[in-house]
Amino acid sequence: MYARPAHFYARILEAPLHFARIPDKAAISHAGRLQREKKTKELKGESDSTSKAKPWVDQDLQDDTEIPSPNQGDDEEDDPGSELDLPHVPYAPPRYAVDSMLERSRDFYTLLNQRRSVRFISPEPVPREVIDNVIRTAGTAPSGAHTEPWTFVVVSDPDTKHAIRTIVEEEEEVNYRQRMGNKWVKDLAKIRTTWVKEYLDVAPYLLLIFKQTYGIGTGGKRKTHYYNEISVSISCGMLLAALQNVGLVTVTSTPLNCGPRLRVILQRPTNEKLLMLLPIGYPSDDATVPDLKRKPLDDIMVHI
Amino acid sequence: MYARPAHFYARILEAPLHFARIPDKAAISHAGRLQREKKTKELKGESDSTSKAKPWVDQDLQDDTEIPSPNQGDDEEDDPGSELDLPHVPYAPPRYAVDSMLERSRDFYTLLNQRRSVRFISPEPVPREVIDNVIRTAGTAPSGAHTEPWTFVVVSDPDTKHAIRTIVEEEEEVNYRQRMGNKWVKDLAKIRTTWVKEYLDVAPYLLLIFKQTYGIGTGGKRKTHYYNEISVSISCGMLLAALQNVGLVTVTSTPLNCGPRLRVILQRPTNEKLLMLLPIGYPSDDATVPDLKRKPLDDIMVHI
Repeated sequence: MYARPAHFYARILEAPLHFARIPDKAAISHAGRLQREKKTKELKGESDSTSKAKPWVDQDLQDDTEIPSPNQGDDEEDDPGSELDLPHVPYAPPRYAVDSMLERSRDFYTLLNQRRSVRFISPEPVPREVIDNVIRTAGTAPSGAHTEPWTFVVVSDPDTKHAIRTIVEEEEEVNYRQRMGNKWVKDLAKIRTTWVKEYLDVAPYLLLIFKQTYGIGTGGKRKTHYYNEISVSISCGMLLAALQNVGLVTVTSTPLNCGPRLRVILQRPTNEKLLMLLPIGYPSDDATVPDLKRKPLDDIMVHI
Repeated sequence: MYARPAHFYARILEAPLHFARIPDKAAISHAGRLQREKKTKELKGESDSTSKAKPWVDQDLQDDTEIPSPNQGDDEEDDPGSELDLPHVPYAPPRYAVDSMLERSRDFYTLLNQRRSVRFISPEPVPREVIDNVIRTAGTAPSGAHTEPWTFVVVSDPDTKHAIRTIVEEEEEVNYRQRMGNKWVKDLAKIRTTWVKEYLDVAPYLLLIFKQTYGIGTGGKRKTHYYNEISVSISCGMLLAALQNVGLVTVTSTPLNCGPRLRVILQRPTNEKLLMLLPIGYPSDDATVPDLKRKPLDDIMVHI
C-alpha cells in the first residue's frame, strides 16, 4: 500500500470536476486565455473573428432531453473525490515478449476487422451466460471519476421486444416521411425497408444501453456524471469487441426520439437516458452486409 | 451480390441525417410528439412542466470549440448516402460451439478486467508495428454513415512530446489554481502532483485522438459527421482492448482547454478537434493504481 493524496485519484478520465461552479475566476482566466490564443492566432495569420475558444464543457449537460428533477438546484454533491480516497496498490499486468506482442496485435486486428454491423439476425437462442460475460466486459471500461455511468438493459421477453419495435418504428416512420422532400429519398416503397426493423422482434436479445447523466450521493444530493456519454461509448466499444470475440453480431443504432418512451416502458429512472439500442444474436444464414471498405492505416494515422 | 436500395445502407449508426434541415415539418411533428408524450406523462402522473422532449440532436453540433470555416453555409454536401450506394455481399463470421463461446467470453472478460488506467509508464521502447496494429484495430469501429471520423496522431518525437506536456501542464495549472476556493482542494503542494504529468515526457508514445467534426465532399462541400464523438469514443474502447491484449498501458485523459493549441502544434486541420490524449507504453516497474473496485453485474445490468 502506498499513501498518495486523495484528489490524486479523482480524475480517471481527467474530468473537469466542478469547473463550471466558479464563473467569476473562470471568466478572468478565460480572458487571459483568449489573450494568449489571440497571440497564437496572430502568429499563424488567423483571423481573430474565428476565436471562440472556451473551456470544454460536457455536452451532456446541454442535452435537450434533460428532464429537471425536484432535487435540482444548488445542492449538488460537493465532494466527488471523497469516494476515490483509496490507497494505491502495485500493478503488474502480463508482459509478453516482442514476438508474442506482434502476433497478438495481428490476431486481435484480424478478429475485429471481421466485425460488421449486421441487420439480419437469427432467432436461435444464445446462452444467457455469454451475454452476462459480454456485459461484464463492457463494465471494465474507464469512466469519468470512476462513476461507471452505464445501465445495460437486456430484453428477451417477446412482448417487451415487440413494444420496443412498435415505438422505434413509429418514430422512424415519422422521421423518414419528414424527409420525403429531400432528393435522396425518392421512393416510399424503398424507404419502408429502412424504417421497418424486423430484427427487433427476431433477435433473441435487445440490449438498450442507458447513460446515467447524474447519480445520487450521500444525503440525496445530485452528483453530475462528467463525460458520461464518452464513458458509455467507450464501454460500448469494448462490448462490440466482446461480441465479435464470441461470434455474435449486432448493429449499433441510436434510435431517434425514442429515448423517453423506451425509458418509461423499461421503467428506468429519470437520470438515465437511452444512448444505444443493439439487437444481439447469431447472424441469419442469409445475412448480408454492404460491400464497404475501411480506410487504410495511412488515412487514419499520422506519426510525428 | 444482392440488389438493395441505396439509402438502405445510409445509417450505420442510424444517424438522423439531414433531420435538422426541415424545421417546418419537424415543428409540426414535434407538436404531435409532445401531445403524445403529454398523454404518457399524464398516465404516469408526471407534471407537464417537465416536458422538454425534442428530437435528438448531435451534441457535437453545439460544441463551443467549433471554429467556423470560410466554407460554412448552405452548401453542405446534400447526399451523404451516395457514397454508400454499395452492393450487399454474404456475411458469415466464425461460429463457435456453445462451450467454446462460454470459454471465450470468460477469457476475454478476464483479460479486460485486468485493465487499469496507469499513470506510471516505462520509457522502454515499444515496437512501432504493435502500435500500428492497435490503431488498425481501433479503425474497425462502426461510425455514423461509415464516415470513420477519426485521426490518430502518434507522437514519439521527444521535442514534440515535451511541447505537448508544456501546454497540458500550463492549462492544468490554471484549472487547478482556479479551484483553490473549493474545499476539496486544500493544499497546493498536494495539488501539484495532479497537474504535473511526467508521463507525457516519459511514455514512448503519446496518442492524440482527434474527432473529425465534418468532412469535405465532392466539389469542396462540407459534410457534417453526425455522431462523430460517439463514433470516436467507441473506437477508443476497441483501442483500449487492443492495448490490453498486448500488455501495454495508458490513461484515458481528456485534456481541458488544450485542444486548439495542441491541434496547431500537431498541424491538424480546423475540422478536427482533440477528443483524448493517451500516453502509451509498458507500465513502470513501480507502477501503482488506486485500489478501486468495479460494480458487480447486478448493479449494471437489468434483465427483462
